Amino acid sequence: MPYPQAVLDIAEQVRNWGRWGEDDQIGTLNFITDEVVRAAAECIRTGRRFSLAYPLKLDGLQTGAIPGRVNPLRTMVAINACYSGDPTTFCTSDDVVVMGLQAATHWDGLGHASYSGKIYGGRDAGVITEQGATVCGIEQIRSLTGRGVLLDIARLKDVDVLGPGYAITGQDLSDAAARQKVKIRSGDIILVRTGKMALARAGDLAAYLGASDPEAHLPRAPGIGLSCAPWFHAHETAAVATDNITFEVLPWDPEVPGAVLPMHCLHLVEMGLTQGQNFDLEELAADCAADGQCDFFLEASPQPFVGGLGSPVNPVAIK
Amino acid sequence: MPYPQAVLDIAEQVRNWGRWGEDDQIGTLNFITDEVVRAAAECIRTGRRFSLAYPLKLDGLQTGAIPGRVNPLRTMVAINACYSGDPTTFCTSDDVVVMGLQAATHWDGLGHASYSGKIYGGRDAGVITEQGATVCGIEQIRSLTGRGVLLDIARLKDVDVLGPGYAITGQDLSDAAARQKVKIRSGDIILVRTGKMALARAGDLAAYLGASDPEAHLPRAPGIGLSCAPWFHAHETAAVATDNITFEVLPWDPEVPGAVLPMHCLHLVEMGLTQGQNFDLEELAADCAADGQCDFFLEASPQPFVGGLGSPVNPVAIK
Amino acid sequence: MPYPQAVLDIAEQVRNWGRWGEDDQIGTLNFITDEVVRAAAECIRTGRRFSLAYPLKLDGLQTGAIPGRVNPLRTMVAINACYSGDPTTFCTSDDVVVMGLQAATHWDGLGHASYSGKIYGGRDAGVITEQGATVCGIEQIRSLTGRGVLLDIARLKDVDVLGPGYAITGQDLSDAAARQKVKIRSGDIILVRTGKMALARAGDLAAYLGASDPEAHLPRAPGIGLSCAPWFHAHETAAVATDNITFEVLPWDPEVPGAVLPMHCLHLVEMGLTQGQNFDLEELAADCAADGQCDFFLEASPQPFVGGLGSPVNPVAIK
Amino acid sequence: MPYPQAVLDIAEQVRNWGRWGEDDQIGTLNFITDEVVRAAAECIRTGRRFSLAYPLKLDGLQTGAIPGRVNPLRTMVAINACYSGDPTTFCTSDDVVVMGLQAATHWDGLGHASYSGKIYGGRDAGVITEQGATVCGIEQIRSLTGRGVLLDIARLKDVDVLGPGYAITGQDLSDAAARQKVKIRSGDIILVRTGKMALARAGDLAAYLGASDPEAHLPRAPGIGLSCAPWFHAHETAAVATDNITFEVLPWDPEVPGAVLPMHCLHLVEMGLTQGQNFDLEELAADCAADGQCDFFLEASPQPFVGGLGSPVNPVAIK
Repeated sequence: MPYPQAVLDIAEQVRNWGRWGEDDQIGTLNFITDEVVRAAAECIRTGRRFSLAYPLKLDGLQTGAIPGRVNPLRTMVAINACYSGDPTTFCTSDDVVVMGLQAATHWDGLGHASYSGKIYGGRDAGVITEQGATVCGIEQIRSLTGRGVLLDIARLKDVDVLGPGYAITGQDLSDAAARQKVKIRSGDIILVRTGKMALARAGDLAAYLGASDPEAHLPRAPGIGLSCAPWFHAHETAAVATDNITFEVLPWDPEVPGAVLPMHCLHLVEMGLTQGQNFDLEELAADCAADGQCDFFLEASPQPFVGGLGSPVNPVAIK
Repeated sequence: MPYPQAVLDIAEQVRNWGRWGEDDQIGTLNFITDEVVRAAAECIRTGRRFSLAYPLKLDGLQTGAIPGRVNPLRTMVAINACYSGDPTTFCTSDDVVVMGLQAATHWDGLGHASYSGKIYGGRDAGVITEQGATVCGIEQIRSLTGRGVLLDIARLKDVDVLGPGYAITGQDLSDAAARQKVKIRSGDIILVRTGKMALARAGDLAAYLGASDPEAHLPRAPGIGLSCAPWFHAHETAAVATDNITFEVLPWDPEVPGAVLPMHCLHLVEMGLTQGQNFDLEELAADCAADGQCDFFLEASPQPFVGGLGSPVNPVAIK
Repeated sequence: MPYPQAVLDIAEQVRNWGRWGEDDQIGTLNFITDEVVRAAAECIRTGRRFSLAYPLKLDGLQTGAIPGRVNPLRTMVAINACYSGDPTTFCTSDDVVVMGLQAATHWDGLGHASYSGKIYGGRDAGVITEQGATVCGIEQIRSLTGRGVLLDIARLKDVDVLGPGYAITGQDLSDAAARQKVKIRSGDIILVRTGKMALARAGDLAAYLGASDPEAHLPRAPGIGLSCAPWFHAHETAAVATDNITFEVLPWDPEVPGAVLPMHCLHLVEMGLTQGQNFDLEELAADCAADGQCDFFLEASPQPFVGGLGSPVNPVAIK
Repeated sequence: MPYPQAVLDIAEQVRNWGRWGEDDQIGTLNFITDEVVRAAAECIRTGRRFSLAYPLKLDGLQTGAIPGRVNPLRTMVAINACYSGDPTTFCTSDDVVVMGLQAATHWDGLGHASYSGKIYGGRDAGVITEQGATVCGIEQIRSLTGRGVLLDIARLKDVDVLGPGYAITGQDLSDAAARQKVKIRSGDIILVRTGKMALARAGDLAAYLGASDPEAHLPRAPGIGLSCAPWFHAHETAAVATDNITFEVLPWDPEVPGAVLPMHCLHLVEMGLTQGQNFDLEELAADCAADGQCDFFLEASPQPFVGGLGSPVNPVAIK
C-alpha cells in the first residue's frame, strides 16, 4: 500500500531539496558551521569521555532478519609471523574483516533510502548502482562533530524501556528537553533514548529486535514517530541517532498504520537528515541523569567508504 | 640477524611494563586523563575541522606488498530494493565490506607486534590466537581523543618530502616543536609529517611505498628513527602517527643497519605506545603553516573490533 | 572428560600412520588406484547424472550454531558494466563470495581435526597455523573420483529419517549392502543416508541440525556410530559422506556417552579417511530404490584451496 | 565503437534463442544427453586422472587489472580449537574464504555478459540485479560432465605458446582435430590449448596476462578468434574452455580490429555456450601427445551458487 496522505503532507513540509545548492550531498549536516563546533567545545567541562559504540564481533546485533547485513567476521592473516626469520626481532599479527556497513553502531548514508524513484535532492534513484552511491556516498561527510544532546524519552516516561510499538512524538522531544533543562539549537546532533540497548547489552537480541506481535507475526518495537520529522526540521537538527535497531516504530506508527519505515524516507530522502542506529546510550544517560548536563561535545565521524550507503561509527561524547 | 645492542639498550630505557598496573591493556593512552582532554578543548578556537583519513576504496593504498592486507572491497547487497513491493514507499540500498584492518588510515593495536615471544606488558605472545588479541585487543581503547600536535619535519627540513631512507630523530622533533613554537605536554598525540602522503594523493602508490634501492632491491622511505622512542618516552606521548605506510625508515635506520622495524617493537611491545599510519596530514599542515597554530583537538577513536590487531580510523582535527 | 577406552582401542586398531609412506598427505584416498577408477566407469550405464550439492546461498544450512562457519554471501562487483562505453558491445556482470569452506556440501580436509596434539600421520598439530594446513591441506587431493556406493540406512530401517541420537553401526552398513545386493570393494566412496536432508530441503533448518533434547539442552541427531570406523577400515573405504550436518551422532553415541565427535578423530586423524557432510542424497536414493542400482561413478573433487581445512564440493553421481 | 558487421553477421548465424524452449537457462549444455555421457564413459581406459585447476591462493592469477576480481583470501576462524576443553579429545580447525567467482579456473555463467541490453535467450539484461542472475544463474547447471576433447593449437603450430595477438580460427580447430585423429561429436566439451598456462605456472603473471604492446599500451595475447563461433555452432559443442585469462584475443582479433571481447557476446549471449578460462592443460596435453588419446571423460560441474555469474571449478579429466 502507498504511504498515507499524512506522510506525504509532512514530506512536502520538510523537504530540503536545493536548500544548500543543487550540488549538495550532505543535507542537514550543513547546519554544523564552524561557529556551531566552536560553541560545542564549551560543553567540555571535565574531559570525561563516553564511547557509544556497540562492540564489533561475530555474535553481534544482527540476527539474520535483515538479508545481507552480516555481523563483523574478523579473521587473522598473520599470528606472530616473523618475516625476518629471527623471532627475537619484529613478529607481527594482522587481521581482516567482513561486515555489513550497518551491522552495529552506524550512520545511514543519504543514499540508503529511496522512494518513488528519488533520493535526496530529488535525484534519480538510479545514481545508486552496483558501485554504490555515486552521489551522496558516505565519504561526502568528511567529519561529523558538534554539540550532541541526549533526549531521554524512557526517563521522561519513567520506564526502563519504552513499550512495544510506542511512537515517540515531537511533543515527547520538547517535553524531554524541557525536563532536562536544555535548549535545542540549530546544528545539534540529537540522540534519542528508548532504553532498548539495555536488552542487547544483557544478551537478549530477540528482545532487542522487538517483542513479537502474536497476531501480526511482526516485531514490535518503540521508535521515532511521524511528528518528529517536523520537529527536527523546525529545530534545524543536523543529525539524529537512536539506541534501537531500526530507528522507527515497528511494525509501524499507529498514527499511520501500514506505513513502512516512513521516517527513512522523510529524513534521508526529503530532509537529507543523516540518521544513526544502535547507539549505546546507557552509560551516557546515567551520567546525564546524575549531573544534570545532557549536552556534550560529540565526535561521530563516519569512515570514508567511497560510495558507501552507511558506515560503522564509534561515537564519543565528551563532557 | 638479532637487533643491535643499541635497540636493546633503548628497550630497557623505555619499557613501561607494569607502569599502570599488571592488568593494563592500553599503555601510554593512560596519559590521556580527563584534565588532558579538558585542556585540549581550549585548542578549539574557530571550529574548523580537518579529516585526516585516506578514502576507503578498492584502488586504495595497498599494493599487495604486505600479504593479506587487502584494500577495502565494498559490494552491494541491495540496490533500491523494495521489500514492501510498492516502490512509492521505502526502498533501500545496503552494502558490505571486506578489508584489512590496517589497509588505509589506521591505528596499530598493541597486539600487532611481538618479539622474543612477548607483547606489551611482558605477556606471552601466545595470547594472540586465531581469535585475535585475547589481551590488548583494539576494543580496549574505548576512545582516543585529546590534544594533537603536528610536527612538520618536511617543512623543518624545507623539502616537499623527506628523502628516501631518512631517519627522523628526537632532535628533529624538538627542533620542529621549537620552530613551530609549541610546547609538548604529557598526554599529547603527536602527528609527524614526512610529506609522503602527497605522493599517494597524486596517485603514485609505488612512490608512496618507497623508491626502490637498485642495489638492495628493497623499498627506501623516510620514517621514524631510533632516537624518537626515548623522546616520546620523555615527553609522555600518548600516541603517535605518521603520513607514511610503514611508520619506520625503510629498509632500516642507518644508525642500526639491518634492524627490521625496531620502532614497532619499542613502541608497541615495550612502551605500549599506540601508533598510527597513513594519516593524511597535507591540508592540516598547510593550515598550521598558515595560521601558526599547530595544536588542535584531535578525535581519533578506533572502531571497537573485539580482539582486533588494528582499526581503521577517521581522525578529525579541530582548531 | 577424556575419550573412553573404547574409542582409544579402536584408534589403535584403525591407525594408518605411515601406511602409505612418511610423506603421505591423502590417507585412504590412496585406495583409489587407476584400476579402481577404470572399474568404476562400468557403473555408467545410461548416463543419468545426479548432483548431490545443496545450493550455495545466504539463507543456507548454517544457523550460527558453529562459530565462524558463515553461509555463502555472494555480492556483485559489476552489473552489466560497459567498460568500452558502448552498450551495444560487451557489458559484464561479476561477483565475489565470502563463505565458510564447510558451510554447505563439503569435504573435511585431513587437517580439520586434531587430538592429543596430533593430526593424521602423527604429525604435530602445530602444522596447522594461521596460514592453514601447511601439511595435509585440501589441495593435496588433486581429484576425488571413483565408485560411489549409497548405503540407505533410513530405508533399511524403514523410516523417513533415522531417530534422534541413533548411532549407525557397522552391522547396519553390512545389512544395507546385503539388502541392496551390492558388494563393497576396496577404494569405494561410501555415501550413508540418514534421511535428514529432506528436513533441510523442506526449509526446517532447526530440525536439520537436530531436535533438541529437553534435558541435555543439546541437539539430538542420528549419525555415524563408533563401530563404523573398523568397518570402513576393514573394507578399505576411500572416503565417506553423509546427509547430515555434523556427520556424527549428537550429542554422542550412546555406546560411548560423553565422547565428543570421536569419529572426526578416528577418521581424519587416525585413518586419514576424508569425510563429507551435507550431501543431498534424496533424489539419488529414490532412483537407487527404483532401479536397484546403488553403485555409480562419483566425481567429487574438492576445490584446490592451498592449505584449506575443507572445501565445498558439487558431487555428481553418474549411473 | 559498435561491433563491426562481421560480428553481427555471425551473431545472426549462431543464435540459439528459443532452440530449447522459452524457459531454457543452460543453452548448449542441452547437447549433453544421457547418451552423450554414456558414450563418454568409454574414454575411460586406464583410470588415470588429471586435475586441470590452478591452485586457489592469495598470490593467484589475478593482478588487479580486472576491478573487483579478487584472488582467494582464505583465513582461519579456528586453529586446533578445543571446544570441549579437553585437548585429548576433538580439537578443530576451520576456515573461510573471500574470492572472485572467476578469480582462477572457472566457468563463465550465461549471465556474465550482455550486449545491446540482452542476455541469453533475448532476455532483458535487467534480470541481472544486485541479487545476481535471477535468470541463467550458474546454479541452473546442475552438472557439467561428458566427453572432453583437447585441441592443442600450440602443438599444431609447433610452438610452446601461441604468439601475442594470435587469433585461433575454426580452421585451426579442424586442423588440430585432424592431426590428433579425433572426430568431434555433438555434446563435446572442447578444451583449446594456447600454451599460456606454462607462463603462470612459471610464476610470470604479467606474461600470462599478455605481453604489452608498446604502441597500444594494451596487453597482447592469443585467444579464440571470430571464426570459432560458427565452428562450435556447427559441431554442437556443449562447452568450451581455454588455458588463458580472458578467453579472447587481446587486445582484439585482427580480423575485427577494435571489437571488444566479441566472443563473450557470441558465445554467452547468442549461443548460450558456457565458456571456461584458466584451465591448466599442461599435464593433460603432454599425456595426450604421448599416448595419442586426446579425448577423455571430463567432470567439470560448477558449484551451485544461486544467482552466480560464474563459478570456480576443479575440472578432472579421466582417461
